[in-house]
Amino acid sequence: MSRHASEHVVGLHGAGGEVMGELIRELVLPRFRVRAAGPVGLDALDDGAVLTPPPGELVITTDSHVVKPLFFPGGDIGRLAACGAVNDLAVMGARPWVCTLALVLEEGFPLRDLRTIVNSCAEVLSELGVALVAGDTKVMGRGEVDGLVINTTGLGVAARVVTDSGLRSGDRIVVTGPVGDHGMALMAARAELKLEGGLASDVAPVWSLVARALAVGGITAMKDPTRGGLAAALNEMARKAGVGIEIEGAAVPVRSDVRGLAELLGIDPWQVACEGRVVLGVHPDTVQGVVEALRADPQGLDAVVIGVVTDAYAGRVIVDTGVGGRRFLDMPLGDPVPRIC
Amino acid sequence: MSRHASEHVVGLHGAGGEVMGELIRELVLPRFRVRAAGPVGLDALDDGAVLTPPPGELVITTDSHVVKPLFFPGGDIGRLAACGAVNDLAVMGARPWVCTLALVLEEGFPLRDLRTIVNSCAEVLSELGVALVAGDTKVMGRGEVDGLVINTTGLGVAARVVTDSGLRSGDRIVVTGPVGDHGMALMAARAELKLEGGLASDVAPVWSLVARALAVGGITAMKDPTRGGLAAALNEMARKAGVGIEIEGAAVPVRSDVRGLAELLGIDPWQVACEGRVVLGVHPDTVQGVVEALRADPQGLDAVVIGVVTDAYAGRVIVDTGVGGRRFLDMPLGDPVPRIC
Repeated sequence: MSRHASEHVVGLHGAGGEVMGELIRELVLPRFRVRAAGPVGLDALDDGAVLTPPPGELVITTDSHVVKPLFFPGGDIGRLAACGAVNDLAVMGARPWVCTLALVLEEGFPLRDLRTIVNSCAEVLSELGVALVAGDTKVMGRGEVDGLVINTTGLGVAARVVTDSGLRSGDRIVVTGPVGDHGMALMAARAELKLEGGLASDVAPVWSLVARALAVGGITAMKDPTRGGLAAALNEMARKAGVGIEIEGAAVPVRSDVRGLAELLGIDPWQVACEGRVVLGVHPDTVQGVVEALRADPQGLDAVVIGVVTDAYAGRVIVDTGVGGRRFLDMPLGDPVPRIC
Repeated sequence: MSRHASEHVVGLHGAGGEVMGELIRELVLPRFRVRAAGPVGLDALDDGAVLTPPPGELVITTDSHVVKPLFFPGGDIGRLAACGAVNDLAVMGARPWVCTLALVLEEGFPLRDLRTIVNSCAEVLSELGVALVAGDTKVMGRGEVDGLVINTTGLGVAARVVTDSGLRSGDRIVVTGPVGDHGMALMAARAELKLEGGLASDVAPVWSLVARALAVGGITAMKDPTRGGLAAALNEMARKAGVGIEIEGAAVPVRSDVRGLAELLGIDPWQVACEGRVVLGVHPDTVQGVVEALRADPQGLDAVVIGVVTDAYAGRVIVDTGVGGRRFLDMPLGDPVPRIC
């Protein structure tokens, strides 16, 4: 039994050298099915990996994950960190291809938890065939970091890149499922609320959904509504394209338990992060086909048109409240839930 | 004056949305001279950047930086984070090309310090012409992270990749300058020791040095001796190539103030991290030319041959102590200095 395994907690590993090497070789490497995407892969444990990109446009994204708690209904920080990388690639129209994983651990972090978290991350990447090609592990002292922070950087390859600025007047706005689940599940977990129906995070890779939509065609813009939720995503898309977006309020799917808890806490569920949804701008000619294609995927059963892009109110988002009223939907100052992702 | 500027400390920014956007646009974007390496760059603030790689082999590396203190003689965490990425690429034989920057900040972190740190990072990347293409900022609560953690992921392009496993019997081992400066400077800073001569970190980008060596040719392996220092780098190189390395102890350059402090603290300076040095394996036919080329660079004035690769003692490092003795140089269990990088 190795030194660290007998300790059951993270010790000296982050300081480099012999003990660190053992942790990586035993705990991390074997969990990831694909560990190379070119002549030098992760197993070489060299200073870097050498990649051979497939044809297409190369897309890169990076995110650090500080979610609290580390384990929550529907997932954990490992699943979140993997999805954070691959979903940012997916909404650029890129098939996730390789990923890096950098762990910052608090001394004394339980190795059993670390194993679970690394497994969750590996599960997502392995399912998608994404290669883990580079990694890093650092340890901070007790009280110097709250458990674990994970950075993932992803590379993807797109046949045609889709930006978040491509909306055109007449496009329809589609969302692939109910909004606010991730943030509200976290809030419930923090408050240790026992809710009926099992409120859970929606954290999931969205590439299969996105691939279905892209296959139909007419996708003009995409974004995953993470921090700041649907409200932030729509405002950014409207601003960047210099168009207005009219949202039919009643059409926006929100689960009843999410809505209930949000009301209880005085939070707007449209401002709360999702981690497995996509907001799409779709040409009117293909929107029916896109929605049908999305609904054919288990993750897209509730895909629905929620609005239309207009020339009026350039850069703004308008909501038809359904009771004869109209209001601006503002860009949130910040996500109402700290450490949401 | 924006909301955050009037606060002078990091507040809500990490939660996404309006305030976050301001921080990025004002504080981060303008500091970096190159912000695109393809059709979609950092300024688009999209979910990812789109890259157009130049010809050559694509190399990737990732590192999180948790150095303590954040400011130290010779540098700060921003300079360290930039060098951490570009140097790992350089020792793979790759010209640093693009970088990502992910900040995890403690709530209340002074914006003035953040500006200085971001500037230090930008200075290194701008000097090398490396594009900052993607970023992320998260905020943790007070006491949830010790100030600031930075992840950098770099991509580089190599005409010919150099691994750390390519040593062959007869190769000479070259080091580009004195070892242990970074770690000992940190130790001195932590202990608030006032030392004569101004012990300072060697943190610096090594690409110009490496490029000179590659231009001469005959480079069989490279590594930057960071965590675990020269001892870890040599042991890894010997193990991976299945060769022995004989080091002439007296030839290894160590500054007198570094040696003095190391002795005082009971630390082996060969086990202490450098952040601006390179260990090279060089074919005997070109080693003289390589050393001369390195010495022509201001960073390589003290470049020197410290040993030779042998068939004996495969996987081990032997030190000739210069007083008639020989000893094994072991792989350090961990860097003697925690949070060294």
